[in-house]
Amino acid sequence: MNYELHQLFDPASSTFTYVLIDVPTRDAVVVDSVDHLLERDLGVVRRLGLNVRYVVETHAHADHVTGAGLLQQRTGAMAATPFKCGISAEIQLAHGDKLRFGASEEILAIHTPGHTSGSTSYLWRNHVLTGDTLLIDGCGRTDFQSGDAGSLYDSVHERLFTLPDETRVWPAHDYNGNTVSTIGHEKRHNARLSGRDRPAFIELMASLKLPRPKLMDVAVPANLLLGIPHAA
Amino acid sequence: MNYELHQLFDPASSTFTYVLIDVPTRDAVVVDSVDHLLERDLGVVRRLGLNVRYVVETHAHADHVTGAGLLQQRTGAMAATPFKCGISAEIQLAHGDKLRFGASEEILAIHTPGHTSGSTSYLWRNHVLTGDTLLIDGCGRTDFQSGDAGSLYDSVHERLFTLPDETRVWPAHDYNGNTVSTIGHEKRHNARLSGRDRPAFIELMASLKLPRPKLMDVAVPANLLLGIPHAA
Repeated sequence: MNYELHQLFDPASSTFTYVLIDVPTRDAVVVDSVDHLLERDLGVVRRLGLNVRYVVETHAHADHVTGAGLLQQRTGAMAATPFKCGISAEIQLAHGDKLRFGASEEILAIHTPGHTSGSTSYLWRNHVLTGDTLLIDGCGRTDFQSGDAGSLYDSVHERLFTLPDETRVWPAHDYNGNTVSTIGHEKRHNARLSGRDRPAFIELMASLKLPRPKLMDVAVPANLLLGIPHAA
Repeated sequence: MNYELHQLFDPASSTFTYVLIDVPTRDAVVVDSVDHLLERDLGVVRRLGLNVRYVVETHAHADHVTGAGLLQQRTGAMAATPFKCGISAEIQLAHGDKLRFGASEEILAIHTPGHTSGSTSYLWRNHVLTGDTLLIDGCGRTDFQSGDAGSLYDSVHERLFTLPDETRVWPAHDYNGNTVSTIGHEKRHNARLSGRDRPAFIELMASLKLPRPKLMDVAVPANLLLGIPHAA
């Protein structure tokens, strides 16, 4: 048991990128990268001498352009994305699928629709990368891009809050300077999802009236192509 | 072997704070905290259910006020600082001293003078927290606060670059979006310290003509008292 999970932050879009490492083999997986931070990510790869095996997405993001395609070109990694997202990646992950890397590491895909219909969380050891499904003291919006508040509620309560309390929660974003939480803490204290039943949650989400993401019209089409327009 | 190292970033002063955790006992050590981010740090402590055993400083910082005293008041931790820094902490660490926490964790104090005469690095497992002695692709300044370029050169070459190449390097600051490096990479590629002999390094450091840190007159006296002025 010798592994590392690195969390990197993009101040421009408040996006977390994760680098998961099997230390003995130096095999690595990069989750939710950002295109304009390619050199930052390659710096970590170079300094730690990593072999990037997979670039992974939790969903087709609307707030930033992914660096997955660029990372793939530079590292030779394979791209793995949730099968319901429509992203053009070699590996299409369904609920229960496992990505294997390093000597004996396994990442479990947990389909957690709601923010988008394809949104998927990834469980690795006692760490769960929750994308925009479960945030620290919050959750992703459900008002566009095939979002559905009832689905998000079910995903969180049936598939995330049933993980052990000690499980570390690593979201795709944070806007308040937080970095990590636990399933136990979010179950008891999440401002949107704790102590609220399904109808009340749906009503709350419908009342938010959030602004349209500035980058959405650019980001979503780009992200369906892993951030790189077709050369053709 | 079940531990976590969390790196937290302060965009205002570009300071990294580290939280070291022995996962089974939840015992933790916080290194180089920042006063205005007390609530962020307490959030991590609360969400992960940590028992903070020690608050530790790498040196008396000149660019931010430490949160060590406040954290100590809120968590009941003991403060441990390098003995040559003149900081009013219960535990004064000399070269070779060990801080023990959790079931069987040990942090080794490595005296690495140069940025200041008391500056100390901390080795925990295969991770070294280098303070302002060794930065990623750089090093701390040596032109004030008992700084000495020759001492910094010796500290890095004799006490840090002699660690195994795979050792992770976690600095107290980064101004370029980097987060982590390795001893092997810094030995080969550090812009100031690789491939330069001692006289050339001393000449380089003397030529930098850096501006005086804005917070210095406030930060240094405050940090000698762990960031909290005496109530008297």
